Order: sequence, then structure tokens, then C-alpha cells
Amino acid sequence: MIKVGIVGATGYTGSELLRLLVLHPNAEIVVVTSRTEKGSLVADMFPHVRGYLDLEFTDPSVEELSVCDVIFFATPHGVAQSMMKDFIDSGLKTIDLSGDFRLTDVDVWESWYGQKHACPELIPQAVYGLPEINREKIIDAKLIACPGCFPTVIQLGFLPLLEKQWIKPERLIADAKTGTSGAGRAAKVGMLLSECSDSFKAYGVAGHRHLPEMQQILGDIQGGELGLTFVPHLVPMIRGIEATLYAELKPGLGISLEQVQALFEERYANEPFVDVMPLGSLPETRSVKGSNFCRIAIHQQAGSNQLIILAVIDNLVKGSSGQAIQNMNLMFGFKETLGLEQVALMP
Amino acid sequence: MIKVGIVGATGYTGSELLRLLVLHPNAEIVVVTSRTEKGSLVADMFPHVRGYLDLEFTDPSVEELSVCDVIFFATPHGVAQSMMKDFIDSGLKTIDLSGDFRLTDVDVWESWYGQKHACPELIPQAVYGLPEINREKIIDAKLIACPGCFPTVIQLGFLPLLEKQWIKPERLIADAKTGTSGAGRAAKVGMLLSECSDSFKAYGVAGHRHLPEMQQILGDIQGGELGLTFVPHLVPMIRGIEATLYAELKPGLGISLEQVQALFEERYANEPFVDVMPLGSLPETRSVKGSNFCRIAIHQQAGSNQLIILAVIDNLVKGSSGQAIQNMNLMFGFKETLGLEQVALMP
Amino acid sequence: MIKVGIVGATGYTGSELLRLLVLHPNAEIVVVTSRTEKGSLVADMFPHVRGYLDLEFTDPSVEELSVCDVIFFATPHGVAQSMMKDFIDSGLKTIDLSGDFRLTDVDVWESWYGQKHACPELIPQAVYGLPEINREKIIDAKLIACPGCFPTVIQLGFLPLLEKQWIKPERLIADAKTGTSGAGRAAKVGMLLSECSDSFKAYGVAGHRHLPEMQQILGDIQGGELGLTFVPHLVPMIRGIEATLYAELKPGLGISLEQVQALFEERYANEPFVDVMPLGSLPETRSVKGSNFCRIAIHQQAGSNQLIILAVIDNLVKGSSGQAIQNMNLMFGFKETLGLEQVALMP
Amino acid sequence: MIKVGIVGATGYTGSELLRLLVLHPNAEIVVVTSRTEKGSLVADMFPHVRGYLDLEFTDPSVEELSVCDVIFFATPHGVAQSMMKDFIDSGLKTIDLSGDFRLTDVDVWESWYGQKHACPELIPQAVYGLPEINREKIIDAKLIACPGCFPTVIQLGFLPLLEKQWIKPERLIADAKTGTSGAGRAAKVGMLLSECSDSFKAYGVAGHRHLPEMQQILGDIQGGELGLTFVPHLVPMIRGIEATLYAELKPGLGISLEQVQALFEERYANEPFVDVMPLGSLPETRSVKGSNFCRIAIHQQAGSNQLIILAVIDNLVKGSSGQAIQNMNLMFGFKETLGLEQVALMP
Repeated sequence: MIKVGIVGATGYTGSELLRLLVLHPNAEIVVVTSRTEKGSLVADMFPHVRGYLDLEFTDPSVEELSVCDVIFFATPHGVAQSMMKDFIDSGLKTIDLSGDFRLTDVDVWESWYGQKHACPELIPQAVYGLPEINREKIIDAKLIACPGCFPTVIQLGFLPLLEKQWIKPERLIADAKTGTSGAGRAAKVGMLLSECSDSFKAYGVAGHRHLPEMQQILGDIQGGELGLTFVPHLVPMIRGIEATLYAELKPGLGISLEQVQALFEERYANEPFVDVMPLGSLPETRSVKGSNFCRIAIHQQAGSNQLIILAVIDNLVKGSSGQAIQNMNLMFGFKETLGLEQVALMP
Repeated sequence: MIKVGIVGATGYTGSELLRLLVLHPNAEIVVVTSRTEKGSLVADMFPHVRGYLDLEFTDPSVEELSVCDVIFFATPHGVAQSMMKDFIDSGLKTIDLSGDFRLTDVDVWESWYGQKHACPELIPQAVYGLPEINREKIIDAKLIACPGCFPTVIQLGFLPLLEKQWIKPERLIADAKTGTSGAGRAAKVGMLLSECSDSFKAYGVAGHRHLPEMQQILGDIQGGELGLTFVPHLVPMIRGIEATLYAELKPGLGISLEQVQALFEERYANEPFVDVMPLGSLPETRSVKGSNFCRIAIHQQAGSNQLIILAVIDNLVKGSSGQAIQNMNLMFGFKETLGLEQVALMP
Repeated sequence: MIKVGIVGATGYTGSELLRLLVLHPNAEIVVVTSRTEKGSLVADMFPHVRGYLDLEFTDPSVEELSVCDVIFFATPHGVAQSMMKDFIDSGLKTIDLSGDFRLTDVDVWESWYGQKHACPELIPQAVYGLPEINREKIIDAKLIACPGCFPTVIQLGFLPLLEKQWIKPERLIADAKTGTSGAGRAAKVGMLLSECSDSFKAYGVAGHRHLPEMQQILGDIQGGELGLTFVPHLVPMIRGIEATLYAELKPGLGISLEQVQALFEERYANEPFVDVMPLGSLPETRSVKGSNFCRIAIHQQAGSNQLIILAVIDNLVKGSSGQAIQNMNLMFGFKETLGLEQVALMP
Repeated sequence: MIKVGIVGATGYTGSELLRLLVLHPNAEIVVVTSRTEKGSLVADMFPHVRGYLDLEFTDPSVEELSVCDVIFFATPHGVAQSMMKDFIDSGLKTIDLSGDFRLTDVDVWESWYGQKHACPELIPQAVYGLPEINREKIIDAKLIACPGCFPTVIQLGFLPLLEKQWIKPERLIADAKTGTSGAGRAAKVGMLLSECSDSFKAYGVAGHRHLPEMQQILGDIQGGELGLTFVPHLVPMIRGIEATLYAELKPGLGISLEQVQALFEERYANEPFVDVMPLGSLPETRSVKGSNFCRIAIHQQAGSNQLIILAVIDNLVKGSSGQAIQNMNLMFGFKETLGLEQVALMP
């Protein structure tokens, strides 16, 4: 039984860690921090854990947290980097769910996040926590940078095709749609039910912080520059991301749709949380709601060489907290699926 | 490991049994029946169980199902009663989620359901499956009649007060609100998202089949007739029931709100799935979404002798399939909470 | 063509005034104020009026607004009372959508709103703007106190019965359900789509500011004290209130359901915005979405002397801005329905 | 005052015609047909028109409808074509909201709709009712084929660019998202609130009937073949379509984003229902809910020659019934906006 600390558990990635970890057979939550809620019962804010967790929020401090075997940072960007050094120096394993350590180029980070990086010296040892490409590195890592929610699903959708170099890298399109929990638990007018229910819109079209992350990871896989257009949209639902990906098969290779399907099935055959659905499937976000699965389906319209890849995840599970626990399981030598055997809540 | 059969698994109580039972440590689903879907993969209709269940729908027949230790009927009313005798004669344990065996008076049943009861001789041995009042009888039962969704939550809300005879039984009001999954998975215009989303209404005001069920059960507890007004409403959400109950404290007893709170806490102290929240709490249906809990809070407005009891459940879990499994656990001597340790999906 | 000013138009009652008034044949919006948005285009914040309104927000000041014939206050409570005197002294007609002038007893106001009233001397000349009871007074008023959204629909539901003294006044129950726009356009965590979508709860059970308003108005009608229990609930939808009202017919009067129906039909026969539906109807909030109607249906369950009155309005129209315009029409001698001939948006 | 008949008014395009036409100053609904609902009051099915329409459904017949000046067909495909000849022969003007007369090539129609066309001889005189490209022809038409909902918004988004030949026609992508009312008012399991609420998915990826319509219309404008990929998605909301369009600027032309913006503004300067929003805008479907507007915004990401066009409509208004009335206004010489001056319902 390992001891777990969660820094910044008043947001959605934090509360989702609570939901999953209170039932994890090998982990026990021992510290939950929040500066603003210090002293109040966690279960008062999050009644869904009533009966499962009897802890108060405490101040985040190295002393408090040093009893832990692993620390999750469920904080806005900027926080983990400001505290990380002390934790790493204390020999703690850390898993950061924010964007602080995802980008390897500190200049790119600073330009997209509009602030100075507080701890660039730790960037090189951060491991990008997408098990489907980095499993071996994760096992030995001290600092995991969990992927963003959009990059998780979009990368899993493009991955096999880029590894094989079957598609033209210069004109990839990712038209992605997310539920509102992706915007976090902060009070914003635009995220009120009255404002975003019964409506739909694109946002972040001018540029979204998940774009450089995908350019970095997919560029590495491709071995060169990518032309990736990424447009996120806001769906009036709580959880879930659907990504509709457009990629052009390289002419001359003569790749059939069936070969693409076979490629995906083979690539993900041993992945416990990637489900390649049969040809013609139309994945719904609800088929992964509350679960750690990514479901993928491949399509091609008659007479077109465009591949259409449909992929869905729960942004709070495979897109953040579930994947973070998947990383934890790997880091501690547990079965990778431990505590993550959740069937999606459908309907 | 017991063997489980589910008759009529294409509806919501059926699919919810699937969701919960595929992860139940002591139960294995071996037969799933549907006349209309015979031969097709269960996971094709319900992709959330992809990877957890590799069965096809079969025809419902005693031979097919006789390998089972227990049969769940997740069928519309009228079906279980037409098949039940053969199963009981074969020595199978059965759990009926429909309304077929809830009412002890066959005339009342026939008048509310508008048809002849096909198997009145089994009514006497059916045990009403509300563990909070019938735990001992359930343990020895062969035929469980699972409570309706509304009766589950409304009865748990009135129960301690009626047992103590602290409230006037002649003017109880239950103003209940349910998500749309309570109407089942049948195609009905009125249940389309386009029709019932972004709207709210009362329904069944002229009389709802759950009324005689509550009159019977609560009348037995009270030891006499009840004047119960029950108005259900349809909420644009998938799961959840909230019941706002109004009851007048008997004058002269001098009962305080704190005494009522203490009564509820004491009555449910050992109930694993009834959570009496602190005074002043406002239970949300999402705090039980996907879980088997019933959460209850007690209120009283200044200068009024009206008690206001707020109670929430997930209609598909504590209101049907979860409670059915709770009954199964009791019937087979398992820990009552086995397979039901689910934290609500929030947000 | 009268000139209209709107103070505080960045909230929902304000934006709803915009929606309705830009098409009003006899009114022209000439000033729209907001301290925080001063200088920015109204249509930038509210794109639905693009093409219909080419004004900027300005500071609220008597000079600025003195060009108007009528001023609407679409402000939080406390604002109208602090500015009202100057406007009244300038001879302007004013319509206050907030709670500032609804209660005639300043002590009651101060106790429920937790602050000192800034302008008690104007309370006596404020006319409660429910045309169905105060039409004549409204015509001559200088200061209209528009009813709250809950009081509008609940009062219209109880009104005929209390006027006739057919029901016991000591145990009235109003179980009301509102969409989220009733909470306004302020950024609050609890009103995020992620928090209140796909869920349902009661709130304000300990006491809601609309209670003393109803006690005052209905008490006046009844000619004595009322025992009114009022429990509001939050529905995951944008607009609409449904009120389910419970009242006990006085024994001995021998009133039939049909007589109650006839009473309602007669009482509201000449009311342009109150629709008494046929016996057995189940009014949906969507049947009034965007419109100024209140629809009412009467029910009684077999063997019970409880009347069940179901009533629906759009909280932003009949519950606030539409009713405010109905008052304006009366004050200026326009046809009462002018600019309010909107068919509900259904589906 | 012209006399209007509506064939098949029990669906959403029919009920939306009712909503808009009962307030149209120059039109009066005199016949509303439905075989199944014959003899029942229209307002019983559609309570939102209570007080505005006092008609019963009747059988659709030429005699019954011959009193009309114009007939709207709000029927599933296949119906209008089977009845159209008699109406045209009787000299009636007709407006078909279904897909029966949109495609000029009867073979293409029969292959996509999977049935024989019942009236190919009328196809040549049908005018495609998109006023923004066919205004003059509409004025003189006897038979209007109203555009599909997706083609309306997607075509308005690509139109100026194809007219100018500024974009590569061989790789256009239209990623479109619709509310559920687009699926009509038929009872289908997949459209239940319980099934499609709180979820998101693509559908019709293998091929959608609106694709050949767009290929025909846009191909004509472009003057050649188009490579158009069209993927529709289902959004858990009632009304609204958002289309995110991807098009590559032809290299060498040196077109800037500002020039594209200017092109759109100029192209639509005199269009009463097309609103080109300022650069950087993010159109929301709610900004057109209930209104006849199409709002469009243009984007381009840094370093990319991909244009991203965002466009929104209400599928039941500009996408069907509102546009049908716009056509009617043109056919009868009314002001084009008559009866369509509706401000979107926001929030």
C-alpha cells in the first residue's frame, strides 16, 4: 500500500484522482492539499467521496507531503514547477497533471504560457506520460509530465499512421470537441450552464497550448515538421472528448482502408486502454465516460484518399487523472490497470 | 463464483446489471437473453462493456438459463410473471426488477396494471427487496420483487418517521423528480432529447403505479391507511431521482429538528447504502450518480411544523439494478456491498 | 415611440429586455448602462442583437438617462433603491426588476436582504407590477416593483382559490423548479455546466427571499396569515419555472374539480397572458420558452381533497423582463400585449 | 393576406412553420394536414401555438388545399414528389422542405435515397431555394426545393471563396455539428435524451445525403469537380448547426486573411440574413437560436495557409422553415424579412 499526496485537489483533475484512488487496492490517500480550503473536510466539498475519505485539506508543504511515496500535482500551470525541485530533491516520485513539464523546449513553453519557467533544469528528466509510447521510460521516471487531454486522444489517433509514415504530414487536421469539465472548476461566465448549454461553438482557434505539445510529440514520431491544424470546440456535456482527425494517405503506397484498420489493431493489440473498434464504428464519448479507455474507429469516404479517424476519451480519466494513475501503476510495478477497471457509465 | 442469467438485457436496468456484474468478484454473467437481438454480440449494442463481456444475446428459455444460480428479470411488467413458475420449480433463485410481484393484493395489481396477473400463486412467496426493512427475509428468499425506483427513495425518506409515528399519516406529500432513464430505453417521442431537454414538467399526476406500492409498504409500517399524494416530474438529465417529502410533525409530541436528525442517523447507522447528511445539507443527484447510495437531508423552515425531507438516489442503481445486486449478495451470503463499491461520477 | 433606458444591462434580465425591446413597435432603446462595460458595444457582449442595436454601454447617470421616458432597472438588489430618488424627482417613470421595492414593510425587507434600505420613503408609492391583480394601479404608477419570478407563477396558481377562500390557507405548499438563468449571469462555481448539468437538487430550503413577498401578496388576498412552505429546486435547463402547488380544499364546501377548473377559466378569461389549460393537461416549461405566457393546469388525485396546481412560466419573460414590458405597455397606454406576441420556442 | 397550407405539420419543420407563420403579417395558415392526427386540434399537439391557431389537422388532399395560395411540404422525402404534380397542375405555388427536388440528376437522387423518383419531370422546374445565390429565380418559381440544413450553412461558408476561385477545390473539409432536432420528431432509440445527452459522436461518416447536394451546388459555382469531405456530428442540444470548414488558399495568389474577411463582408453586404462577424469572432449556435441568421467568422492559424471558416445557423429556421418563408416572401413580392425579424433566444 503506497501513500499518496494530492496537491491542489479542489479542481476536477484533483477530485477525479480522489474518485479513482479511494478504491485503488494498492494506494492510500494520506494528504490532500488546498490553500483556500485548509481545515475543511474534503468530503464536504466533494460529497461523492462521503464514506470513502475522511481527510481534511491541508497546506501544501514538503514536510506535510514527505510521508508520501508519490505526489500528484493537480494544479494550474505554474504551480508544480515552483514546488517541484524540493520534492524531487526529497526523493519523492511526482506526477504532474499540468502543462509545466510537457514541452522540452523552454522557450516554446514560455512563449505559449506567457511567463518565465521557474524550474527549467528539471525539464530534461521529466518523462512524457503517454504509456503507449513511453512505457519503459515511465517505469524508471521520477517526474512524469502527464499529457494534455486533447494531445492524448489526438496523438493516439495519428500515432500508428505517423510511425509507418503512411500519411502526408504537412496537412493534418484535428477537429476536436470537448465537454465543459476540460475548462476546470473555476467560476467563469462563459462556462455557466446558462451560457454554454443548448449551444455549441469553436474556441481557441487562434492557437491553443496543446498545439505545440502535439507538434513536439508527433513531430518526434514522424521525424520532422508537421503541418497540424487544431480546432477545439465546446460541447454542452460534462465529460468527454471526441476528435475527428483528417489525414491524407500518401499516394503511390496503395494502402487500403483494411490495411489501416489492421495497422491500428496490431499497434494497439497489447494496450490495455486503447480499443480499436470494428470498421464502420461510430464511437460515442459516453462509451468511455468515467473509464480510462480510448476508443478509435477508422473511416474513409468513397472515392477519397482522406482517412477519417474518430477517437474518444473521457478527458478527466484517460485525458488526465486516470492516465496519471496508469503512470503511477507503472512507476510502482503494479499491474497497469489496477484501480482503473471501470466500466463506462452508460447511459 | 455464481452463475448469473439476465432476462431482457436490452433495456436500461439490464445494461446497468451488465455494467455492475462484469466487475463483481463473485458473479459471472453466463446468459444474456433478448428475443429481438438473439445472435448478436451484447457488446455491439452496449460498447461500454467491450472488453469485459464476450457473450451473444440468446433466447430466454428455462433450459438455457438452468445453468444459472440466479436469474434477473430486467423485463417490462408482465414478462417475469409469465415465466417465473418454471424457474422457481427448477429451484432457481430469481430477482425480478419489474413490478410483477411487488403488490401483495392481486386485485390492486390488476387494477393498476390493467391486465390479468399470470401467476398470482407466487405472489405470497415474493419478498419485497428493500434490504433496509426486509434484510432477513431476503436472505432466505427464492423470489425477490425489487422495489420501484420512486418507492425506494420515498420510502427511505419517510421510514424512520412512520416507524416512530412522529408524523401525521393522512397528508404526506412526495414531490419527486426523475431523470429520463426512468422511462426506459423504448423509442417514445416524448423522451427524445429534442422534446424533453431544456424543459421540465410533471407527469403521471392522475395516478402512477408506484403509488399503490408505497401505500402498501408504508401503510404496513404505519399500521394503517396513509394519505399520500405523489407527483412525479421529468428532469432533463439521464440518471437520478430527487424526492422532496413533506410531512407534518404530530403536534403535542414536541419533537425538535435535531431529534429528527438523530432519529435518521440512528435508524440508518448500520445501513451501508443510506447516508444521512448533516443538517442543512442539500443533496444533489450527481452525488450518487452511478453509485448505490441513497443520501438524505432533513429540513424545517422557521415557524413551521412541516418537515421537509430531501432524498436522492440513482434510479438505475439503488433504484433498480444496484439494489437487485444488493439483494443477490444477501441471498448468496456475500458481503452486502460486494461489487457495489462505486464512487459517484462527479462531475 | 417612447425612449427607453436600461440600467445594468449585462445580466439576463437586462439582455432579455434588449431582446424584446429592439422589436417593440412603440419603444426605442436609447441608453444602456453598465459601469464595467462602459464604451464597449452592447452587441459585442450580446451577439444575438447584432443588426438590431447599435449602442455602446454608458455610465448610469441621471443626466444621461433623463432623455428617456422610462427607465428599467435590471440590477441586483440594492442598486435601484440607491438611484431611484433622483429619477423619480426628475419625473421619469421607472420599472424595477429587482427586489428593492416589492416588500411594503421595510423591516421585513431589511431582515431578508441583510442590509439597510436606502430609500424607504419611496416604498409606499411603488406599485407591485402583477397586472393580474394590480392593472389599474399600474396604469398610473411612477415606480413599478416587478414581482419575483417564483412569486409570479406561484401567485397566479393560488390566486383564484385564495380570492374565493376555497382552500385552507394554513398549509400551502409550493414545490418550485427553476432553470439556471434564474441565478443570473454572475460567475459562480455552482452554476457551471459541469456542476449543475445532469443533476438536480433543492436549494434555499432554509428560506428564500421570495417567501416574504408571497406571504405579503397572498396574505393580502386571503385577508390573513398564510402557512406557506416554499422549496425551490434547480433544473439543468436554461429557462423556465414549473411550480407544483398543493392546497387542501376546505371540507364542507363541496367544491368539485370541475368547479375549480371553471373558477380558473373565469378568473383568467380576460388575461392575455394566463392560459388555463384543459383538465388533465401537463404543462411543460418549453411551452412558454421565450414567451410571456403563464400556463396552468388543475389536478386532483382519486380519493384526495388535495388540489394539485401545475403552473409554468419563462422566468426571464413573464417572470421578469416580459412582465416588466407588460407593465410599461400599461403605463403608456399601449396595447398590453405589444411587443410581447412571441410564440414559445418549441422544440 | 395569402392563404397557406402545410402538408405534414407534425414534425419539427412543420411545427416551426406554425411558430413563424402564426405571427406573419401577410400570411394566414388555413390548412394543416396530417393523416395520423386528422381531426385533432393542432394546438393539442403543439401547445406553444395555443391562442394563436385554432385549426384541426385534416387529410392532405388537393381539394382541401386548393384554397391556398402556397403549400409547404414539411414531409419526409418521397411524399412531396408523390403529390406535387396535382398541386402544380392546379396552379399552386409550392415550397418543399424535403430532399425530393434538390438534386437535378435523378440518377444521383435515386442512388442516394434508395428509391425510384416519383416525379422526375418536375425536377427541371424546381428552383433551389437558397436566396443568396438564386434570388431572382426564386421570385418567379412555382416549385421551390429548400436546401438541406447542412448544405445551407456549409455553402454559405464556402461560397465567396469558390466564386472567386481563391481556394483549392480538391480538398475541402466540412466538419459539421448539429443539434438533435435535425433528426426529426420520429421516435428513435438513438435520439432519446438518455442516449444522446451528455455525449457526442460523429455519424453518417460513410456518406450523408447532403453530400451530393453540396457537390452539385458548390460544383456549379466552382465550375468543376470538388473534393469535399463532410462529417456530421450529433451535439446534445436541440437546435443549431455549427460548421467548421477547412480550405487551403491557392498558393501564389498572395491572399491575406484581411482580404478574405473583406471578400465575405462585401459578398454578403446586402444579404439580410448573413452576418459576417469581425475577425477573431467565435460564433455560437445560440446566437442564432430561433432566428433566421447565418453568422460567419474567418480564421487562419499562424504559419498556415489553411482557412478556417466558422458558420452557425438554427437548423429549423435558416436551415429549413425560416428559409422556406424567406422563399415565400420572395415569391409573393413581400419584404424578404417579413415575419422573420426574430432575435435569437439567448440565453
